[in-house]
This record gives sequence, C-alpha cells and structure tokens, in this order.
Amino acid sequence: MKRLSILGSTGSIGTSTIDVVGSRPGDFQVVALAAGRNTGRLAEQARALRPRLVVVADEATAQAIDGMLPAGTRVASGRDGLIAAARLEEVDLVVCGLVGAVGIEPAFAAVDAGKSVALANKESLVAAGAFVMPRAAETGALILPVDSEHNALHQCLRGESASEIKTLWLTASGGPFRGFSRDAMAAATPEQALRHPTWVMGPKVTIDSATLMNKGLEVIEARWLFGVPGERIRVVVHPGSVVHSLVEFADGSFKAQLGVTDMRHPIQYALTYPERLPSALPSFDLVASGPLRFEDLDTDLFPCVGLAYEALAAAGAAPAVLNAANEVAVAAFLDRRAGFLDIPAAIRGALDRHAGAAASTLDDVLAADRAARKTAADLLASGVQS
Amino acid sequence: MKRLSILGSTGSIGTSTIDVVGSRPGDFQVVALAAGRNTGRLAEQARALRPRLVVVADEATAQAIDGMLPAGTRVASGRDGLIAAARLEEVDLVVCGLVGAVGIEPAFAAVDAGKSVALANKESLVAAGAFVMPRAAETGALILPVDSEHNALHQCLRGESASEIKTLWLTASGGPFRGFSRDAMAAATPEQALRHPTWVMGPKVTIDSATLMNKGLEVIEARWLFGVPGERIRVVVHPGSVVHSLVEFADGSFKAQLGVTDMRHPIQYALTYPERLPSALPSFDLVASGPLRFEDLDTDLFPCVGLAYEALAAAGAAPAVLNAANEVAVAAFLDRRAGFLDIPAAIRGALDRHAGAAASTLDDVLAADRAARKTAADLLASGVQS
Repeated sequence: MKRLSILGSTGSIGTSTIDVVGSRPGDFQVVALAAGRNTGRLAEQARALRPRLVVVADEATAQAIDGMLPAGTRVASGRDGLIAAARLEEVDLVVCGLVGAVGIEPAFAAVDAGKSVALANKESLVAAGAFVMPRAAETGALILPVDSEHNALHQCLRGESASEIKTLWLTASGGPFRGFSRDAMAAATPEQALRHPTWVMGPKVTIDSATLMNKGLEVIEARWLFGVPGERIRVVVHPGSVVHSLVEFADGSFKAQLGVTDMRHPIQYALTYPERLPSALPSFDLVASGPLRFEDLDTDLFPCVGLAYEALAAAGAAPAVLNAANEVAVAAFLDRRAGFLDIPAAIRGALDRHAGAAASTLDDVLAADRAARKTAADLLASGVQS
Repeated sequence: MKRLSILGSTGSIGTSTIDVVGSRPGDFQVVALAAGRNTGRLAEQARALRPRLVVVADEATAQAIDGMLPAGTRVASGRDGLIAAARLEEVDLVVCGLVGAVGIEPAFAAVDAGKSVALANKESLVAAGAFVMPRAAETGALILPVDSEHNALHQCLRGESASEIKTLWLTASGGPFRGFSRDAMAAATPEQALRHPTWVMGPKVTIDSATLMNKGLEVIEARWLFGVPGERIRVVVHPGSVVHSLVEFADGSFKAQLGVTDMRHPIQYALTYPERLPSALPSFDLVASGPLRFEDLDTDLFPCVGLAYEALAAAGAAPAVLNAANEVAVAAFLDRRAGFLDIPAAIRGALDRHAGAAASTLDDVLAADRAARKTAADLLASGVQS
C-alpha cells in the first residue's frame, strides 16, 4: 500500500491520479489532497478518499471548505500548507500536479524530505533543477516524470547507462497551429489555441502546446532529469502523438515508447514504479493507430522553442525568467489582454532584462521569477512589440 | 579485450562480425574461425586475424586450406572441430553464425562451457531451446540474440521484468511476396524470392523471409529466449523494417527499438554488451525514414507462420521437425527441384509424421531432425501435394 499526497488534486493531473487510484483498490491510500479554490470538487474528493490533510489556496477558502470535510480531515492553506502536505511523515510518494511556479517549493520540500515524487510540475525543474536534482541525489528521493515525453524517456532508459545516451528526442504533436502562417498565428484566439489535436490537458499547458513552449520547457526539464546537455536534446514533430519520445544511444540504436494518449498511463507508471501493473484502460492498437509520421520542427514559426534553448544555455536564473514571463503572457492571452505572438515577445523582453539575475539559492530564483513576472506584465500592459 | 570464436565466419553474419571487429581495433581478439568450404575467404580472414584455430567442413577441406594459413594457426574439421572452437578455454564470446541444424551442437557446447553467445543460429533455440536454455541458466552463459527482432526485444527488455511482458510483437517486412495472390506465389522463382525488400542476408534466410517461415522460427526462438508462451508472441507486418520489434507490457505501454537495417548494429550490440559503444555506421534519420506503417499478417497467404505456432504448441520434437523439413524444402526450391508452395506442404507432411517423436534428450531431437529431413526429401521427390 503506497501512501500518497496529491498536490493539485482538482486539476487535470490530480483527477487522473485519483482515477488511477480508484482503478486499483487496496494499492494506494491518499493521505493528503491539495488544490486551489475549487472547494466543491475538493470536498467531494475528500469525502471519497478521507485524507488526513486537505490544503487550499488561502485562509478564506480554508474557512469555506471546513464544514464540507469528513471527520478526521484537517485543513491548511497557502504555501505552508502545500509544503506540509509535501513533507508529511507517513507519505511515500508526492504527486506534484500543481501548475506553474507555485509548485516549485512544494516539490523541493518533497525531495528534501526524501519522498518519491511523481512530477508533473515542469517548473520545479525548469526554474529550480539546479537545486532539486542535487538535493534528490543527497536524500535518495526518486523523481518519476509524469509528462508523457519524460515518462517515455524514463521507460526507454531503464537498464541503460546515462553516459551512453547520444540524443534525447522529444516528440511534439505540433499543436493546433502546425503549418499555420505567421499572420494566421498573430490573429489566433484562445478558442483556437485550446483545441489541442491529441491530448486533453489543463488550459495553461494547452496554450504552451500551441506556442510549443511546452516543448521548450520539456527540453530544460529533460536536461535536469537525465543529466544530458541541451545540444543533445532535440525536438521532432510527430503529429499522431503515438510515439511519446525516443532515446538515441551511442551505438546508433533508437528506443521509443508508444501508447494511447491518456495521462493515466504515465501517472500509473509513476505511481507503481518499479512495478508495471495491469491497466484498466483500453489497449493500444498498433495497426489501427495509423502510419507514424515524423517531421522537422519549424523553429521560425515557433520561436518559444529557441527561447527555451537560449535560456538553458544561459543557465542561472534564465530558465526561471523564461517560465515566469511565459506564465504571465499565457494568462494575458487567455484573458484576451494579449495576442498569441505577444507571448514570445514578452518572454524575449523579460529574458533581455533578467536572464543574468543572481541564482545562487532557490530564493534568488524565486526572486527572479517575481521580477520577470512584473516585467512581462508591464510589457504586455504597454503593448509589447511582437 | 574480448576474445571471440566466430562460427560461420565466411557467411553473412560472420563477415559482418569481422567488419565490426575491424571497426573497433583493440576491443576484440579473434581466437577461432569456423566455416564450411569457402577456403579462399577463410584463409584470407585467417591471414588478417591470425586466429589460433580454423575449422572447416571436412578433412579434405582441411588439407586444402592447411598451406594457406599463417604460422600458429592450426586447422580442425567437422562436428568435433566446431565443438572445439565453441569450447576453447581462452574464448569469452562465441558468435554462432552457422546456418541451419549444423549450428545446434556447437551452440549447445558454447553454452555448456559457460561462454557468452552471440546467437544468430535460430535452430539452436528452435530445435533445442528446451536443452540450451536450462543449461545456460546452470552455467551462467549469457545468450545475446543477433537476429534484429530478438535483439530489439532484448534492448526493450533491459531493466524490465519478464513477468510484466504482455505481448512480444515481432515485426515482419512481409518479404517480397507481400500482397501476392496464391497463384502468383505458386509460380514464384528463386530469383523473385531472393529479392528481399529491406534486409541483405544469406540465401536460406532470405527464402525463409519470403515464406515468412523466418517469422515462424523467430516466434519459437522468442519463446525460449524470453520465456514467454506462444500465445503472447505476435507478428505484425511493418514493410519498412525500421521498427525492429516491440514489447507490450502489462500496463499497456509499448517499447520499440528502431534503426537502420544493417546487421552490424545488432552484432555490435551483442559483441559489446552490456556496453553500447559508438558505431562507425551512418546515423538513423527518423524524419527521412518515412511514415512507419503496420499491417495485420495474412496468415492464409503465409501458412508457414501457422505451422510454426502449431509446432511450438505441440512442443517436444515438433519444432525440430518443422525446422529440418523447412531446410530441406528451401534447398530443393533454390535448386528448382520444388515449387514455392511445396515448402509448407513438405513441412506439413513431416510434422504429420514426426511431430510426436521422442524428445527427452538432445540426441532424440537430432534424430527427429534427421528423420524429418528424409521424409521431407521423399515427399518432395515424389511430388508433394501443395
């Protein structure tokens, strides 16, 4: 019986995690649930799973949910609540399913406490990989990637030596704007950008898949997870999303992981690792899945990928700045306060201003994150030049 | 420095092995070479590699080659010579590249002596898997498959648990007769059958790829190599031969191995295992390799696959009988003494007569092999009903 803390329980990763937990009765016990302000959904989850701890965004939400929780479930809130949920003594594995920079400190706390971590929160590694990975090596915390791409790489690297990796190949569906002109992209609406061709995900991640910043963040994430430098991490467009990623080894051999596009697969993999347990999901049909196509990435049309490689090469605070500016710009785009091409423009501006910020401590990185947010917001408010 | 004995050195696997050895100076020393009657090629290899022992088919060939060998190379011949080459004290790894049942006893001898074995001789497992595998477990002999399909499965199974395999998927190019009518196939000539669309191999193996018996033998081989029952080993047609095979795991995840179609890749893998060393061969280009297509196998058009599953289910001597009758029928077809569809007909006849033969010892199996050869030859001489 593995004991879980699920951070981001009402989001896309969290609800899929609870689905997997429900499909294997007796294998898991949910000890803590953390979410934002969706009190209805969270209280429902708490009544079904009876965790010891529930965490919400703030004190007001905590008061609102308190009466809706079962006996024996206590409520906490905010940053301290998330960190408490990540460090709980009796928890074996922490599911980091929070979206955005808010997930960084709880993920670090889980690693610091030596917990196994099912990591879906990219930002923990993008912004803070230089702190999270060495600490994981010290505490023995196992980091199991939930992103389908990194999960695929993790599977392909079982029983292999990291020193024999030639290239990590991240597959990209290409998103809804594959093959668009730059003009069509400039006029893109949130509705268009949210129409992802292959994966069902939360709104922030879906926009990142339209700009392909998702792939850029994944390149940085892969660098930290697998210890491979940026020049040996490449993106290949694979519209079907059947092959979730590939590893090319020193001897010229490629290994790929394939399957249906359902996040419950990589989540189950991370939850049950090192075991592989039967899945309740429909089987993958290799013949019916159609021809598998691969294309080169159009880096001109998707500048966010190049910005991510640039931030990775600059190192220090640059990846945190990239990520923070992107979060602000995506929120503005979803709110119709910014155009689609304002997203890379705002990131460019923030990188130019803050990429060289101090990054000696996790606090430095969080400070660079805040500064980049402000700059990006200012640039967007004043009509950034995209 | 690994010390090698190369059985079948003048054949397709043997010459590719020597290519790999030559591409990595200092990594390997060739201690023994064994071949049949190609004295010119073998003497040339011996002069270049200076092995301690050279083995040829018979005493007459031994006398013919003796004066062509460098000083310090001794010559032996026949079955005893092959077994001596497989057991040589100073050899670390035996490359079993002999074609056909002649390779069974030397492969068993290598395993019996606890050597690592780079196994290309399918028959050693098809006919004698029930003896070879338990003996390997006792002596600690490592069996590294060189067949591209099993090599792919071996790569996909690194770091995985055999008990978590759901299905092994062997890919088949479909051979030169994919999509033919039965009538066109009945009239097929050796020239047509030898025109393999993707792989360059020896003539016997190329005809097996045209009948798809190759795939049938591979199913049986996979059963022994990976301990997976026949009903969980499946064949999928993949005309491009880019994906060399796939493993489907209990959790629904698939892993595949991909690369260029050049036997030097799996040979190098087996020679350097567990290390992966840089290859001198051209890189694989995922984008240029074109869309990857998968199709269901037409089992009516390719009855040899069904015969192999039948022999595997019957167990005992049946796989040896299948293999022996196939060898005789393929030789007759190449000599124009039999038609293409006489191949499955002769195997059917031999299985009907000998599938239930005793199989308590390796000698029993070799006796069933001889009996099946005689029956198949008689059937072909008398005009088997195809």
